[in-house]
This record gives sequence, C-alpha cells and structure tokens, in this order.
Amino acid sequence: MPHKLIRMERVRRKERAHRPVMIAIAGDSAAGKTTLSRGLAEPLGPARVTTVCVDDYHRYDRQERKGLPFTALHPDCNYVEIMEQHLQLLATGQPILKPVYDHDTGQLIRPELVEPREFVIVEGLLPLHSRLTRACFDFMVYLDPPEDIRRRWKVGRDTQKRGYRVDQVLAELEHREPESAAFIRPQRAFADLVARFAPVPGRHDAPGTPLSAELLLRPTLRHPDLRRIVALNGQRAIHLKLSRDEDGRPVDTLHIHGYAPREESQVVLKAIWSRLGVDGGDPPESLGDIGNGERSESLAITQLLLLHQLLSAAG
Amino acid sequence: MPHKLIRMERVRRKERAHRPVMIAIAGDSAAGKTTLSRGLAEPLGPARVTTVCVDDYHRYDRQERKGLPFTALHPDCNYVEIMEQHLQLLATGQPILKPVYDHDTGQLIRPELVEPREFVIVEGLLPLHSRLTRACFDFMVYLDPPEDIRRRWKVGRDTQKRGYRVDQVLAELEHREPESAAFIRPQRAFADLVARFAPVPGRHDAPGTPLSAELLLRPTLRHPDLRRIVALNGQRAIHLKLSRDEDGRPVDTLHIHGYAPREESQVVLKAIWSRLGVDGGDPPESLGDIGNGERSESLAITQLLLLHQLLSAAG
Repeated sequence: MPHKLIRMERVRRKERAHRPVMIAIAGDSAAGKTTLSRGLAEPLGPARVTTVCVDDYHRYDRQERKGLPFTALHPDCNYVEIMEQHLQLLATGQPILKPVYDHDTGQLIRPELVEPREFVIVEGLLPLHSRLTRACFDFMVYLDPPEDIRRRWKVGRDTQKRGYRVDQVLAELEHREPESAAFIRPQRAFADLVARFAPVPGRHDAPGTPLSAELLLRPTLRHPDLRRIVALNGQRAIHLKLSRDEDGRPVDTLHIHGYAPREESQVVLKAIWSRLGVDGGDPPESLGDIGNGERSESLAITQLLLLHQLLSAAG
Repeated sequence: MPHKLIRMERVRRKERAHRPVMIAIAGDSAAGKTTLSRGLAEPLGPARVTTVCVDDYHRYDRQERKGLPFTALHPDCNYVEIMEQHLQLLATGQPILKPVYDHDTGQLIRPELVEPREFVIVEGLLPLHSRLTRACFDFMVYLDPPEDIRRRWKVGRDTQKRGYRVDQVLAELEHREPESAAFIRPQRAFADLVARFAPVPGRHDAPGTPLSAELLLRPTLRHPDLRRIVALNGQRAIHLKLSRDEDGRPVDTLHIHGYAPREESQVVLKAIWSRLGVDGGDPPESLGDIGNGERSESLAITQLLLLHQLLSAAG
C-alpha cells in the first residue's frame, strides 16, 4: 500500500492550486457577522471572494434537533470534523462539496460546490472552535457586542426577517445561553482581532448616536501601525490604548468614536485607504453599510482595517 | 501564510487515522457490481467494511439532466474532482460527507457521513476514471460482461426493480452507448483484474448452465499463485492460461468453468479458503449468491480470490 499513497501525494501536490487568504468571522447569533463580512466582500469584488457560512455543517435538521439535549450551537450538533476538513481543503486551494442547511425549512438539502477564490471569508458560530480550524486562517475576528445589544439585534432580525415572535426569540436566547457560554464565547480568546460595537461606557450620548467600536488588536499578528494616523487625527475619531490582555500579554485597543463628527471619521478612513496603495479615489461606498440605507463610521473603519490585513496577506 | 500551512499539516498528520484497504469495482450499468461487492462485504462483516457507490457524485439531478447534451455516464455530469478528493480522504483514513443521489426520485438529497472502516469497497461507473482516483486503490476490478448479457441483466433489473418498461431500458442503453464507449470501457485497461461472466465461447451447453468466468489477472499486482490448486483439481473446475494482454504484456487468464459439477468447484473454493488462514470451517455461504436464492460457483471463486487479495493487503 505505501507506494500507492506516495503516488497519491505526488499527484495531489502537483495538482494543488493557489492558496487563498482565509479570514474567520466568528461570533454568536446576530453578533453582526454578515454585516461585517459583506463590507469586506463588496470592495474586493465577487470575482475575488468566496464566502462560506459554517453554520451549514449541522449534523441534524430542525425536526431531529427537537428530540436532542442540545441546541445548534453545540459542537456535537455539527459535523465539526468535516468542517475542519473542508476548511483545510479551502486553505490549500481545493474545492469542497459544502452541505447546505435551509434556514427557511430547517432541512439539510442538496450540497453545493464551493471553490476558493483569492479570499475566503468564513463566518459562523464555530469557525474558531478547534485547533485544526484555527490553523486554517490567516486572520481571525471575533465579534463581541454587549449581550443587551446583541439581544436587540437578534430580536429585530428574527422578527422582521425570519417570522418569529419577540417572546420566541427571547426564549431561544435563554435556551441557548449555556451553550453560548460553553462554546461560542471561548472562541474570543483565539481571535487576532476582537471587535465590540457599543456606546462608550460612561458617556451619555443622545439617543441615535452611532455606536462606537472597541477593537482589541492582539499581537498574534502584525497589525498596521496606526500611531501616525491617530496623531494626525488628534484622537478625535480614533485613539489607541496600550494595555494588557486577559492573560497579561500586551495588547493594543483601538477606540473608534461613534460620536465623532462624520468628517473626522472620514479623515481617518481616507488616511488608511491611502496606505492601502489602491489607485486613488475614495474609500468604497459599501464600507460601513449597516442596511436600510444607514451607515456606521466605526464599522467602516473596522472593515477598512480588515481589508488592509487581507490585502497585505495576499500581497 | 506559510507558517499557518505548516501548522495545519502537522496537526493533520498527527490526527490522521488508520489507512483502510481500498478496492474499486468498476463497470457499466448492470454489469454486476453490486452482486460482486455484496459477496465481499458479507464475509468480512459490516463492522469491517464501508461500501461507497461513486454514482452519487452527480452534478445535476434527473430534471436538470434533461436539458443537457450528455448522460449521467459523462464525467462532466459528475463532480469528478470531489470524487477524487473524497477517495483520497477515505484512503488516508478520514471521513467524508458524501453526496447522495436518490435513484427513486432522481434528486440530490441530504449528504451522509461516511467513515472508512478496515476495508472500503468503491463501486460505480467511474471509479477508475482518473489518475488520482486510481492512485487511491490497492486493488482495481473491472466487470466486463459481453454486451448481450449486460443488456439482459439491465432489462431484468430496471423493469423489475426500477419500474421501467423494456423499450425504455433499451432506448436508454442505446442513448448511453457512445459515453459507455468513451468513458466506461476505457477503465478496463487500468484494472488489476478484469472479470467476464459469460458462457464459454464455442461450447454448446444446455440452457440454464451456470455462467463461466474468465478472470484476467494482470501483473500490476501479485496475485495468489494458483498453479498448485489448478494441478490438484486436474483443470476440471478451473484452468490457468498464460498469454499476452492487449498491450503485449504477459498476463494470466483464469478460466472458471460454470459447466463443471458443483463438487469440483467446491474443491477449488475450499483449497483457496484454506490458504486464507482463516480458522477452519467452510467458505462463507454468501459467496456466489446471485439473488433469488440462486448461486454461481464461478462468482464464488472470483469473490474468494478478491477476498484473498483484500485480506493479504490488510495483513
């Protein structure tokens, strides 16, 4: 048998394709994963980006889950080993036949072919769950909104877009909480960047003030040096704070002020944009889009920093 | 990126499981693949065998195929690259999420988890189609019945079990013939063993005489040395003939005589069985089962030779 395997390896190496840049966007339900990733995919363009949602790797359909002692958040409720395998395949430039979970009917349906383009955005509940999945990514993001904000977002989305009643959504959130604590939130520890969109604690901004963002930039990766941009801007739209992570390691926190005038944020956005070395022009319109025609400058700056990382990794 | 990939490889190597023995059973529709493989799987036992049918890798469902210029036999009608990938994964001891084609409805449905056991039997129309699929196998079989016999088998099966009319089956056979010639039959050249179940040409046996078998034993692999068994049996149930393959290479042909008295075949069967080193007893009842309570001694001997190969490769 060994000679067969050697032959197999040789053929496989030879036929191996380009290796894409892989980014993970992890977070609990309604944490803003799709909104964030849309703003990355659009400026790069569909020809360069493959987006994969790993919530499709459900082991059981909705009907089967009713008889089970865990929710869809639990790793045992998902084909984690297949998710690992598929992420490895994508990371080495190979196509996958991805399972498909139909959120409308709650059924597992015909799988679909997914081919990795230059950038692969992987979003979902558990992309950072295992050592093997994490090893597939060039960049890992965890979305960490305060629970009260996430609850509001989830109620809004699930009642408006998925046909649930408010009391159903709240009951589901409560039902899932132990597994959120056990399996979703621990992924925060592995992210290269943790983003929290929220009002600044202690400030009393007028209702309707855009959310600020707090980005934990972990030294697990080289982040762009923002000191000059912060200085240039006089700390009005953003400021950078050196501190210690939960485990005592040095970490930078970038604060993006939602309450800052839009023009100030635009200065920052343009300064980062110009560093990207893209041919002139303004930053893409799609940055900061939070749906319904609304815009968030703190989201735009966050997305632009992530774009910077993606393009550097591809470089 | 490179350090990520190295890390990924390391983790993958560490977690790699046992490597199964892989056998391919290729052949056209109704060539007898399932009958042959059932007689291998049963003696080994379900705990040791995984059977995979690669005809599940259809790219289009029955409805979609109606508008296409090729049949299900065409490689373009199948996810060949995914089939290659999945066979490689199985060959290295890893599970797959295998697509499922529902032959009753003609639809592609929810995929299923398949984990490789000690032996993996892969049957279907195109398992030997590409260099990469072939590299995954320890042993490759091609079933090569004469076309008139295959036609009879296909009409029998498709009218009795799949609800078609005779004229529909014959029309389908004709429709598929160019792709059988272009994609199915060329696989014969790659098999380690080519099996043809048919009456012996030139003999005029009474109707109902069991089919004989002609096994081409290619020197691509070490086959069991049958000379002593042939001599012992006085060439009544089997004989071995040294000749040249189509490409001029030396090849052995084992002729198994369907017209020989059953006791003679049993002597051969027991002689091969005793060489397998299994604890005493008679050869398994399931060998030679062709359904409807009928038995074929030439099939039984063929299956036992394949079992011999599988067990040797596992040893």
